[in-house]
Amino acid sequence: MARVWSLQEVAEHNNASSCWVIISNKVYDVTEFLPEHPGGSKIILKYAGRDATKAYEPIHPKDALDKHLPQEKHLGPLDSTGAKELQATLATQPKTQDEIRVEKARARKRPINQILSLQDMEDVAREVLPYKAWAFYRSAGDDEITYNENRRAFSRFFFHPRILRPISKIDTSTTILGFDSSLPIFVSAASLGKLGHPLGEANITHGCGRMGIIQMVSHYASVSRPELMAARVNESQPLFFQLYPDRDKSVSAKAIREVEELGFNAMFMTVDGPVNGNRERDLRAPFDLEEQERIVEEAKKASGKPGESGELPERPEDADNKLVDGELVLVGTSGGLRTTAELDMSWTDTLPWLQRTTKLPIVLKGIQCVDDAVRAAEAGVHGILLSNHGVVLYRIRKQRPDVFDKLEVYIDGGVHRGTDVLKALCLGARAVGLGRAFHFANSAYGEAGVIQTIRILQREIILGMRLLGVTSVQGLTPNLVERVDWQPLLAKM
Amino acid sequence: MARVWSLQEVAEHNNASSCWVIISNKVYDVTEFLPEHPGGSKIILKYAGRDATKAYEPIHPKDALDKHLPQEKHLGPLDSTGAKELQATLATQPKTQDEIRVEKARARKRPINQILSLQDMEDVAREVLPYKAWAFYRSAGDDEITYNENRRAFSRFFFHPRILRPISKIDTSTTILGFDSSLPIFVSAASLGKLGHPLGEANITHGCGRMGIIQMVSHYASVSRPELMAARVNESQPLFFQLYPDRDKSVSAKAIREVEELGFNAMFMTVDGPVNGNRERDLRAPFDLEEQERIVEEAKKASGKPGESGELPERPEDADNKLVDGELVLVGTSGGLRTTAELDMSWTDTLPWLQRTTKLPIVLKGIQCVDDAVRAAEAGVHGILLSNHGVVLYRIRKQRPDVFDKLEVYIDGGVHRGTDVLKALCLGARAVGLGRAFHFANSAYGEAGVIQTIRILQREIILGMRLLGVTSVQGLTPNLVERVDWQPLLAKM
Amino acid sequence: MARVWSLQEVAEHNNASSCWVIISNKVYDVTEFLPEHPGGSKIILKYAGRDATKAYEPIHPKDALDKHLPQEKHLGPLDSTGAKELQATLATQPKTQDEIRVEKARARKRPINQILSLQDMEDVAREVLPYKAWAFYRSAGDDEITYNENRRAFSRFFFHPRILRPISKIDTSTTILGFDSSLPIFVSAASLGKLGHPLGEANITHGCGRMGIIQMVSHYASVSRPELMAARVNESQPLFFQLYPDRDKSVSAKAIREVEELGFNAMFMTVDGPVNGNRERDLRAPFDLEEQERIVEEAKKASGKPGESGELPERPEDADNKLVDGELVLVGTSGGLRTTAELDMSWTDTLPWLQRTTKLPIVLKGIQCVDDAVRAAEAGVHGILLSNHGVVLYRIRKQRPDVFDKLEVYIDGGVHRGTDVLKALCLGARAVGLGRAFHFANSAYGEAGVIQTIRILQREIILGMRLLGVTSVQGLTPNLVERVDWQPLLAKM
Amino acid sequence: MARVWSLQEVAEHNNASSCWVIISNKVYDVTEFLPEHPGGSKIILKYAGRDATKAYEPIHPKDALDKHLPQEKHLGPLDSTGAKELQATLATQPKTQDEIRVEKARARKRPINQILSLQDMEDVAREVLPYKAWAFYRSAGDDEITYNENRRAFSRFFFHPRILRPISKIDTSTTILGFDSSLPIFVSAASLGKLGHPLGEANITHGCGRMGIIQMVSHYASVSRPELMAARVNESQPLFFQLYPDRDKSVSAKAIREVEELGFNAMFMTVDGPVNGNRERDLRAPFDLEEQERIVEEAKKASGKPGESGELPERPEDADNKLVDGELVLVGTSGGLRTTAELDMSWTDTLPWLQRTTKLPIVLKGIQCVDDAVRAAEAGVHGILLSNHGVVLYRIRKQRPDVFDKLEVYIDGGVHRGTDVLKALCLGARAVGLGRAFHFANSAYGEAGVIQTIRILQREIILGMRLLGVTSVQGLTPNLVERVDWQPLLAKM
Repeated sequence: MARVWSLQEVAEHNNASSCWVIISNKVYDVTEFLPEHPGGSKIILKYAGRDATKAYEPIHPKDALDKHLPQEKHLGPLDSTGAKELQATLATQPKTQDEIRVEKARARKRPINQILSLQDMEDVAREVLPYKAWAFYRSAGDDEITYNENRRAFSRFFFHPRILRPISKIDTSTTILGFDSSLPIFVSAASLGKLGHPLGEANITHGCGRMGIIQMVSHYASVSRPELMAARVNESQPLFFQLYPDRDKSVSAKAIREVEELGFNAMFMTVDGPVNGNRERDLRAPFDLEEQERIVEEAKKASGKPGESGELPERPEDADNKLVDGELVLVGTSGGLRTTAELDMSWTDTLPWLQRTTKLPIVLKGIQCVDDAVRAAEAGVHGILLSNHGVVLYRIRKQRPDVFDKLEVYIDGGVHRGTDVLKALCLGARAVGLGRAFHFANSAYGEAGVIQTIRILQREIILGMRLLGVTSVQGLTPNLVERVDWQPLLAKM
Repeated sequence: MARVWSLQEVAEHNNASSCWVIISNKVYDVTEFLPEHPGGSKIILKYAGRDATKAYEPIHPKDALDKHLPQEKHLGPLDSTGAKELQATLATQPKTQDEIRVEKARARKRPINQILSLQDMEDVAREVLPYKAWAFYRSAGDDEITYNENRRAFSRFFFHPRILRPISKIDTSTTILGFDSSLPIFVSAASLGKLGHPLGEANITHGCGRMGIIQMVSHYASVSRPELMAARVNESQPLFFQLYPDRDKSVSAKAIREVEELGFNAMFMTVDGPVNGNRERDLRAPFDLEEQERIVEEAKKASGKPGESGELPERPEDADNKLVDGELVLVGTSGGLRTTAELDMSWTDTLPWLQRTTKLPIVLKGIQCVDDAVRAAEAGVHGILLSNHGVVLYRIRKQRPDVFDKLEVYIDGGVHRGTDVLKALCLGARAVGLGRAFHFANSAYGEAGVIQTIRILQREIILGMRLLGVTSVQGLTPNLVERVDWQPLLAKM
Repeated sequence: MARVWSLQEVAEHNNASSCWVIISNKVYDVTEFLPEHPGGSKIILKYAGRDATKAYEPIHPKDALDKHLPQEKHLGPLDSTGAKELQATLATQPKTQDEIRVEKARARKRPINQILSLQDMEDVAREVLPYKAWAFYRSAGDDEITYNENRRAFSRFFFHPRILRPISKIDTSTTILGFDSSLPIFVSAASLGKLGHPLGEANITHGCGRMGIIQMVSHYASVSRPELMAARVNESQPLFFQLYPDRDKSVSAKAIREVEELGFNAMFMTVDGPVNGNRERDLRAPFDLEEQERIVEEAKKASGKPGESGELPERPEDADNKLVDGELVLVGTSGGLRTTAELDMSWTDTLPWLQRTTKLPIVLKGIQCVDDAVRAAEAGVHGILLSNHGVVLYRIRKQRPDVFDKLEVYIDGGVHRGTDVLKALCLGARAVGLGRAFHFANSAYGEAGVIQTIRILQREIILGMRLLGVTSVQGLTPNLVERVDWQPLLAKM
Repeated sequence: MARVWSLQEVAEHNNASSCWVIISNKVYDVTEFLPEHPGGSKIILKYAGRDATKAYEPIHPKDALDKHLPQEKHLGPLDSTGAKELQATLATQPKTQDEIRVEKARARKRPINQILSLQDMEDVAREVLPYKAWAFYRSAGDDEITYNENRRAFSRFFFHPRILRPISKIDTSTTILGFDSSLPIFVSAASLGKLGHPLGEANITHGCGRMGIIQMVSHYASVSRPELMAARVNESQPLFFQLYPDRDKSVSAKAIREVEELGFNAMFMTVDGPVNGNRERDLRAPFDLEEQERIVEEAKKASGKPGESGELPERPEDADNKLVDGELVLVGTSGGLRTTAELDMSWTDTLPWLQRTTKLPIVLKGIQCVDDAVRAAEAGVHGILLSNHGVVLYRIRKQRPDVFDKLEVYIDGGVHRGTDVLKALCLGARAVGLGRAFHFANSAYGEAGVIQTIRILQREIILGMRLLGVTSVQGLTPNLVERVDWQPLLAKM
């Protein structure tokens, strides 16, 4: 396949009946792949006949094309004229307002030793991330009421600290599904890590290994699974896998086989996310950016200096939300994912199938009510992860504490402090997952940020245990916390 | 009646003993009509002897004069000199600050595909509507505590989503009083649609037809009922009618006959609105506008540039709130309505009369407590609409769930999200009405705005059902929501 | 006593052993009166040997000197040289920043027909009142938590309006202690009315007469009691009297006799106010004014323009809070009152004495808990006024509803809307008092303001009754309101 | 030891193997003392080989070197050349932005008689304190939620004032552990008083003596214990001592002996503070100051004026938070304390040891739950101090009121008003401690501030008792307060 291609040749294949794209100076025919793309055909067709590298890279692991596109569709390299032309285009493209902002923010980023809390880390990340990446990481459903509720959920619980107990030696270690963890926390799956750092989720893997905690790898990690396995500090470092079931079970089975062969240690099946929530912050990002450019352009005109072009910039392409089968479909950064997701999961089909298909411990990720927690326990899974609903943990404690004896219960969402972790453990959680926090850390400082985040939590957990008069995670019992009926203040929201 | 009239001739009939007005270059003698005017004589007398077109048109349907004023009082056209003079006056009238603001806002209105939520739509409407129109649409009682309570009423309910349920196929359709609706929502009556768009409520009618939902037409629609019937997409599109009983039953009976003959499909009798609430935002609008002009004038003077006139503008005429029979009577845009309303409605007279008078299904609009809901069920009406009081729905669910078996229960007010609709349905509502939202949409983008609003709700309803693990409106049951005793945060108010 | 006095002669009597003051160009020897002054000797000694008119007049009724100072201490007039000199001093005294602000505010005061709510009225009053007067009227205890709680107290109650009830005829009249009132409201005592309007409380008296409601006259009204009786619209207009018991019972007995002879109709004995609350807003007023002057002075200096004097203005004299018997004593506008108040009131002495001393109906003003309400009923008083504690009304309703059968219950404090009045009546109150509201109204527009305030309340009460489906005050029953357990929003605080 | 030292000689001993420092022109060899330093060796090593006076003085009592460093390590004076050089360096050091701010604030400080409340006092202190000192005094744990909760804790309680009770004579006196106190308040231990005023805690001692209240002296007072005893108004003035147990019991025993011999009257053993909370405000202070300098520098550059140095100031040395044994250790002003603290306190060892070791009455300071309060009563201590958790007081009242019969209960934290004190006493507290308030007062006005603070509280307590109808602290009973279930407003936070 020594054939090389010109930009003009590629440009002819610019529609659904013949769709070629250029990625890193290689040409691919994705026509037949269009309906299989987990992110839908629409997003590929935007780049039909053109270079898609900038959009492709931060979202896809390196092995994606090899795994999903037959070799005969790898058409070969772009000719050198075309490659140079692409490079030149890239070089001369004027910087957007957002790119200028990010550059400045990176230049004056605070030294990492000034980062004292997860909020500090998020603040830096917000400053140094491109707006769209930040909107994707930060986005939450509807009016973000639930997000804010979760943030404050733990502030409704107050501690009953005990005094006159020896606290010089604190042991924060525990096990999760039988695997050692230096702290009762783990990294919860969050996708598209390369949006924030070129090394993506690999930084998290290595940082976790160094600090002795476990990472749950997103199904949609932007780094390939073999690369992540390779990023471990040693072969005994455990990794969990987050599975998004595909509507084609053979696709999921293939992923499970790969994961098992690579040596992952547990299977977290996501059961609450076959559709994305209403993440308007993410959806709105292109409009916000456009508005920003417009304001700058107008200011230039008003000051008598001609703008670069004198015209408003075009609206970003991915902003054209359209009707699909008569329904409004909105597309943001997150909208590109998941179109092949299994929407018809069930207790009677999907879960038994998974139990037959893997020998790894199974955790259901996304339980949101007590009844489903009970049912999961009856179905014999090894753990449940209460997603974004800290309040459900409290209800299980009150209504069905027997659930804690039958499986391990984890929560994620709304955890910002070591004291939040301690409260969750007092209520019965085995461990607490953090997702966004690690993306923010990785985006701000790479692996050093990941480690600093773990250290901050470690410090807060040890300090909190001492203040409680407790020396091991087993000592964190329900009588140490009380849910109050009044409205706590939040110093910072 | 070939006689034409000069402005001078008309100007002589400028008081209650002889009151003529000009509307669209035609002259009318409204002296005898003064006491019959539903909006009271006061508002007509302001324009006695002069042109009333600008005030008249956005409030009245085209057939109002033909229906309510005998032909012999249609005195004939204004002479061409007078017509030209009126036109000239209009043309040279300097624009108000508010008109200038609206013009600018319309010029830079966001494209409709950037409207992702009902709040976005309201934001655009607020920008592009004349202040008085916005104040009328948006106005709510007293200190707007109830309005704000309603906005947050649904945020007090949290979902208990279920997992591992097949959700690929979602059916949002239902019936309302036996009529098909593609979604469990309908348009609730809101009057004076032409304040926001020259085609008024007709845009809503046509948009509803295209999207398969039902409109309840306001008694005081600014478009005539025949025109609205004509605006349907086809003859089978259902329309409901909102009846404000008149103190003269024969007047109401006449309206009922018209409505039945035109083919309306249900009768929503308003029982909570024989008097308007204390809508201060509306009442205050003229003062706010005056203040705005004053500030601009003063700024002009201060900058040494002579003002247009050098004098403060006169206070808008309708601002002079006066004593009537020793009581303070305040007049805003809404104040002009309803002076012939039946204040003495009763269970023993009004309702039986209506049941005798119409064969259409009857809904009582404006129930505000459980006792009245029970009484309505006993009285044999087909439905009740809980107006502006989402909390009553919850009380009926708790105290008298049998009501839901005896009639259909609807709510309106305080609904801003598809999730709000779902919560109401979980509690037992058959469908949810939205009024203001459609005025805002129509004012912002006309029929396209109406359709976009329905699509946004459709998208949010489908998404919400999927996240809940429910595939049909029948699946929305009380166990899926919980009222919480704490104070939720509101991300946006 | 034809002798006239020079300023120099008066100036020699400038201390406690010989203390003369000038009031309206007359000279008085108040040396012996110092210990008897209800406002304490300290405040008089500030003006020893000088003119005290400006401080004296807005606080004292005209007959105060005749009543309390023996004729032989009325030393006679100031000589004409002195009078001219005083007048000249007054004329050349530069205006303070606050006086300049007030002058401007009065010049652009909104026309009264734009006043739609009591809040509007308060807003105008705040603009046009001298800061110290406003601080006195508006001041409330400590951090004003209680004040704010009261403001929102009624927003915790929601109505259960009833529909399909005839509401064309609304009767708002009631009786208070057997006296007719056109509305279930009355004016609650508030002192020092001349701070806000030169005619003081007389405007309120006349306005109440015109509108058919009853005024309770403050013990410390700044208009004499005979003048207030004379300000009535006719002889049958009832007036109530607020009694502050003096530590010398013969002083109180004398006041009671005067009041009875003048024809007052009831005796409201204040039982909660033998000491003032911690009214820091009032106390702080002189510092705030000083700061304001300082800022202006500094701005002048900074701009290179010499200040009037180049020096900071002296600190207002009444700001020097000092130690008295080793305790910190703070003096504001209100601090001058009440030093002869009876601190040792009791159920066993004070109340029986009052019952023996007057034949007028007795109301205890300032009940703050259920136990005291019960005890008052047992003691046979005719009414109780729950001051500033709307929540106590609710507790009596819940715990001891029999109290409502034994005496009349009133509340004041925290009432800003007709709907607040209706809520109180639903809970069992006979009528509702408003104090500050009438001071604000009088300060803003004089008697017209008083009448407008009553009309606003009348309109809101009638409207609210119609919306509730109730036609007389007897129809306002507990089942129409519900106390909610959640936190209502306040649109305006 | 006539030998004098040059700066060069000292400079050679600049590391852990030989560490000399200069304090007030004297040279000390602290090499062997490094591991014994309660504040850790790290903070000393920063000044190894150099002058440490500025950092040392505000934190240490004068006798610290004599008590803790053997005489042979007192090497002798710096030579006069060195002393001059140090002085010169100090004199020419440019002022920091913070120093400039403080100087200005001190120059325009309000006169003390304008200080009407503890909040006023805190406001002045914030203005006139160096930022780091203020951050240390004000700092509270984590997101300061608990701090804010405490501030509002008392606003959840409302009074039930009683009327018609004699209140002319109010007696605020009580006893604490048998010692007379003129008010039911005491000064709670707070360390490092010289950060705010050169005379440090001695001002508080003397002020308390003059006003008749008792001071609990911090273990880490910056004034020596003999000096504080000497600062008493007379020998009968009681003083309490706050003990932080050392991990070496002999060290604690020595402190206890000193304290007993000096005549202290009670022993408050701190049981909740073996580790500091997460005081981020304190930790962050150096970064905040650095940012401040940076902003000023950049502004200078931007304005074209060369900065002093043209370079960013170095980051303050104590900001380098480092890893210790793999754990993140953050160092602020407070971080320097307590590294030799006993972390392994227990009911079975530490408390019995203390009971054997001292004959003084023992109070456990820092009880945070009902169980520990009960256990303390069973263990026979004389009192407990509920630290920073006003809500625990309420729980003891509800769950175990017998505790109040067995020992004296105190609280501190969250008290800002005399009414707060009264509420605590109504719930069963014997007295209320205030710590920060006295540091703020001392920092703002020295001893006069201390006295003014006591007088403000005295006034508020007397006023509050009168308003409640209570004349002695014994009359403050639980039925006078009620905890409300709703959310009170806070006028000021």
